[in-house]
Amino acid sequence: MGYDTPLREYRFVLEELSGLSALLDCPGFQDLSVDLVRAVLEENARFVQSEIAPLNAAGDRSPARWLDGAVETPPGFRQAFSQYAQGGWQGLQHEAELGGQGFPKLVGTAAVENLNAANLSFSLCPLLTDGVIEALSTVGSEQQQALYIPPLIEGRWTGTMNLTEPQAGSDLSLLKTRAQPQPDGSYRLFGQKIFITFGEHDMAENIVHLVLARLPDAPPGVKGISLFIVPKFIVSADGSLGERNDVWCASLEHKLGIHGSPTAVMLYGSGKGEAGEGAVGYLVGEANRGLQYMFVMMNAARFAVGVQGVALAERATQQAWAYAAERLQGQGLEGPSKGPVPINRHPDVQRMLWTMRALADGGRALAAMAALARDLAHHHGNAEERGRQQALYEYLVPIVKGFCTENAVEAASLGVQVHGGMGYIEETGVAQYYRDARILPIYEGTTAIQANDLLGRKTWRDGGAVAHGLHRQMLATLDELATAAGRGGTHQAGLKVIARHMEPALQAYAQAVDYMLDQSSAPAAAFLGSVPYLMLSGVVLAGWQMARAALICTEALGDDGRGPQADDPFHAQKLAACVMYASQVLPRAPAHLASIIDGADVAGYASQASD
Amino acid sequence: MGYDTPLREYRFVLEELSGLSALLDCPGFQDLSVDLVRAVLEENARFVQSEIAPLNAAGDRSPARWLDGAVETPPGFRQAFSQYAQGGWQGLQHEAELGGQGFPKLVGTAAVENLNAANLSFSLCPLLTDGVIEALSTVGSEQQQALYIPPLIEGRWTGTMNLTEPQAGSDLSLLKTRAQPQPDGSYRLFGQKIFITFGEHDMAENIVHLVLARLPDAPPGVKGISLFIVPKFIVSADGSLGERNDVWCASLEHKLGIHGSPTAVMLYGSGKGEAGEGAVGYLVGEANRGLQYMFVMMNAARFAVGVQGVALAERATQQAWAYAAERLQGQGLEGPSKGPVPINRHPDVQRMLWTMRALADGGRALAAMAALARDLAHHHGNAEERGRQQALYEYLVPIVKGFCTENAVEAASLGVQVHGGMGYIEETGVAQYYRDARILPIYEGTTAIQANDLLGRKTWRDGGAVAHGLHRQMLATLDELATAAGRGGTHQAGLKVIARHMEPALQAYAQAVDYMLDQSSAPAAAFLGSVPYLMLSGVVLAGWQMARAALICTEALGDDGRGPQADDPFHAQKLAACVMYASQVLPRAPAHLASIIDGADVAGYASQASD
Repeated sequence: MGYDTPLREYRFVLEELSGLSALLDCPGFQDLSVDLVRAVLEENARFVQSEIAPLNAAGDRSPARWLDGAVETPPGFRQAFSQYAQGGWQGLQHEAELGGQGFPKLVGTAAVENLNAANLSFSLCPLLTDGVIEALSTVGSEQQQALYIPPLIEGRWTGTMNLTEPQAGSDLSLLKTRAQPQPDGSYRLFGQKIFITFGEHDMAENIVHLVLARLPDAPPGVKGISLFIVPKFIVSADGSLGERNDVWCASLEHKLGIHGSPTAVMLYGSGKGEAGEGAVGYLVGEANRGLQYMFVMMNAARFAVGVQGVALAERATQQAWAYAAERLQGQGLEGPSKGPVPINRHPDVQRMLWTMRALADGGRALAAMAALARDLAHHHGNAEERGRQQALYEYLVPIVKGFCTENAVEAASLGVQVHGGMGYIEETGVAQYYRDARILPIYEGTTAIQANDLLGRKTWRDGGAVAHGLHRQMLATLDELATAAGRGGTHQAGLKVIARHMEPALQAYAQAVDYMLDQSSAPAAAFLGSVPYLMLSGVVLAGWQMARAALICTEALGDDGRGPQADDPFHAQKLAACVMYASQVLPRAPAHLASIIDGADVAGYASQASD
Repeated sequence: MGYDTPLREYRFVLEELSGLSALLDCPGFQDLSVDLVRAVLEENARFVQSEIAPLNAAGDRSPARWLDGAVETPPGFRQAFSQYAQGGWQGLQHEAELGGQGFPKLVGTAAVENLNAANLSFSLCPLLTDGVIEALSTVGSEQQQALYIPPLIEGRWTGTMNLTEPQAGSDLSLLKTRAQPQPDGSYRLFGQKIFITFGEHDMAENIVHLVLARLPDAPPGVKGISLFIVPKFIVSADGSLGERNDVWCASLEHKLGIHGSPTAVMLYGSGKGEAGEGAVGYLVGEANRGLQYMFVMMNAARFAVGVQGVALAERATQQAWAYAAERLQGQGLEGPSKGPVPINRHPDVQRMLWTMRALADGGRALAAMAALARDLAHHHGNAEERGRQQALYEYLVPIVKGFCTENAVEAASLGVQVHGGMGYIEETGVAQYYRDARILPIYEGTTAIQANDLLGRKTWRDGGAVAHGLHRQMLATLDELATAAGRGGTHQAGLKVIARHMEPALQAYAQAVDYMLDQSSAPAAAFLGSVPYLMLSGVVLAGWQMARAALICTEALGDDGRGPQADDPFHAQKLAACVMYASQVLPRAPAHLASIIDGADVAGYASQASD
């Protein structure tokens, strides 16, 4: 099935929901305009739909192949990446002084979603390259930035993150890869890294690996980890490529999904490189602060993986909606007709279609809120506001990552269900989404890791300040809903449904935050509820954005159904999505709360799992 | 990973929770005893663990293959099925007068679960054969029963169900396959059937297809469908095999999972049979009552698919628990230790492990309640009670099918998550469960079809009588919980957690039933909530059984921790599962209710999916 970039929805989220126009008034965006953003996203849509989306199924059926150390990507990937690079898409959201185009993250996020919706496997290469660019531009030396960033932005080279080792996954304190200092100031790395996405491939001239390793005198644990640049081909001072480094792809994993994306086992220092034994590496920043630096890259990557979740939910949703409009089966509820009706006339199919739509749209609105906060944290004129927005962004990143990726699994599963038996046949294509989606809540930190972050660093550390602030803002939206519903009019019923579910959801959010603050000295009780706490937060915050969207839609449609944009079918459909989000998704918040507040009472029982 | 038949759990469910001993006092079971049942299940466990379970991963990697019309099953399947047949396992729950062993369905259900947990793909062949035996023993003529049932029970032949056609899936009124009467009283069938599980294979001498088709003068719709026996090889009056019939496997589907099970496209009447053009078929029962007859088989098969859900949840749960006990990662909550701890010490992993365990155990308890009802419906001495139990069984079948299969998908997904990145690698084996599980909420009637059945035939038709009766029984259990918790003692905290969640869950159940009864004239509003209604019913009814289990456990452990079975670690673990079910699963009931009672308010918005 084809994929249609939801351009109208992007416009709504950027312009109507997130205030793109106001953002572009901030310092640093003077060369941009709403019209330019529209034009860029339209061009992005054209390119992605025609060149990237058609490779998705083929990449699934012809996985990346390991051939004696080299890796052949699926048919068409190489050419497509070259076009992607030539189009300047890799630089879209990077700063102009580094060779990027300097668009806000809010805009970049739409382009990232679009690319991932078209082809998740392909998109992983640019996604990780973005992370390497962001890390080097933050913590790399001037020389490192000058040497590595421009070719990465130009798409001549690509980047990877090397964290995981067989014994060290979620727990990076167990890292063993070691870096030996050399007389010339460089290092030689020795070790094995696993699960390295696009660790080897044939789409670029060089690959820039960012690698976590230990120096000989490093303290144990996470405080003894340093960050290194290890290029596949050693880069001369003039930027030209030199000897083949001693870093090798030993094999590729045989995975459930994302077949088009090579997941490599990487060996550092096997002695086969032209440069001699040990992979030549260069320290980034100070020694032993590698994990801290990697967090820069990880935060960018975690946010982007959350957006992958939105993208996959969107893709699955589109295909389910299209199938349900075509597949004829069963009588309509109106009574016997002349023949079978499209299955989108059946209420239960509608429930599934809207739940998928609500999960995709809610996640997108949440991610946009986070992206906007990131942009304001860098561009707002007021320093205090920049600080507030940075805190908000950091609070939202684990929620975007955890909530949107778990939802992608749910949406993909519902997508199979809408297709019935046909969904289980690989040729239909929706089984691929179900397989692809399953990695999203795992890589770049499992949902549990995100939940630890939300609880430990983003709730306990600030005493719930960000969360309480959000709660106050959400209560204000609830008041607006009540006022709007009180006016009567065509959309009163929908607004009332939203308000009815928002109220207990907001209560649940406040209670969950306060319960968690109370449990800061009882970690077992708190961490038993950490993932439900993250999911509750996502349900409520995305629900808030959907409630805001509903208010915008009723304004556009008019109380009398004759508002300024009443002729545009978009707002009526969007309002339906908001109502269905409230009805089908918001009730999960009180359910999560009920599990969370059991923590202290059930911790003793739960711990019997380790008896 | 190996699979361990949970024999101790089976004993608990059969003997302690379901009252096996009392059941065996019913007429017809005089030759059976609790000890014999134990011995049979132990032998079943031994056989299944050693001969069937080891073929599961191989069947996934070497799918059934189509070879010019013939089908080669995966390595070992043929020999294993022969051993299965020789062991008499196909006849375990069938009546003695037909050549079966006459065990109660309660016992047969444990054996079915065990087989499916070991190897879902393999088990589909016996599962469908069971359905054909049940259908023919109910509606076949004496001659048909004598000719077909013994070889099916002996495992020399196997059976299939042929309903679906490309244009007729959930909606069987669209069936086109036609049956032409012949002068000798037989029929010739012409048409195409799809999604025919084990429609062709190499494990048996003959295959007995039960096929839905239309007679030339049949009325349109579901009232014009008749049921036919179409054997692969025509059977002579003496039971010997004759000519190859004109029924052919045209191809096999390329599926997301259950690779070991061939899913066939079947052609009836292509003219290539030795018997000439058209597949020779024999009418079962009366003309035009085929769908009604097929429901006999479907009810048996639907229940069995629900049990498949339990089985898959059990298998995924076992593997996750084993991995979590071995994988070392992270510090324990007690503070820094000498090294990493097994991940089952982390509260969030415990949450996942127990949620999986709760879903598997809760589903098993629910299925046992249904199986017991079926046994009592056939064997209870009192006719009125038989009627009550039959109504209960019929009420429970769609819930067992829908709830347990949706839970299998959730449990398999959690199982991948517990494994982290390793879960996404196919060699680990848990990705197979995630793929296999996804068919369960689809085949033998999607969850929506089950929900239609629960709502239309099992709630509206009897005015909620069965549901109201269950609600009264559940309130009595809630009273027992309060009394037991009031006694104080070691397990008071756990019982209080259960009671705390049971109360709103029971309220939600009662309110959902009453809401649905009120909406019987507003089908859109009701059917929007039909699947949530089914899931709510499953959550609450299985939760009730888990509450009963908790009461049994506290009795066994003793209020002072020195009860009659305090030394057996089983009851303490089981009690923990019951507490965690209450904490993690029961809160879903009020959330489902909140979605359900929106029906009338949101139906107008939802219907925009078909605009």
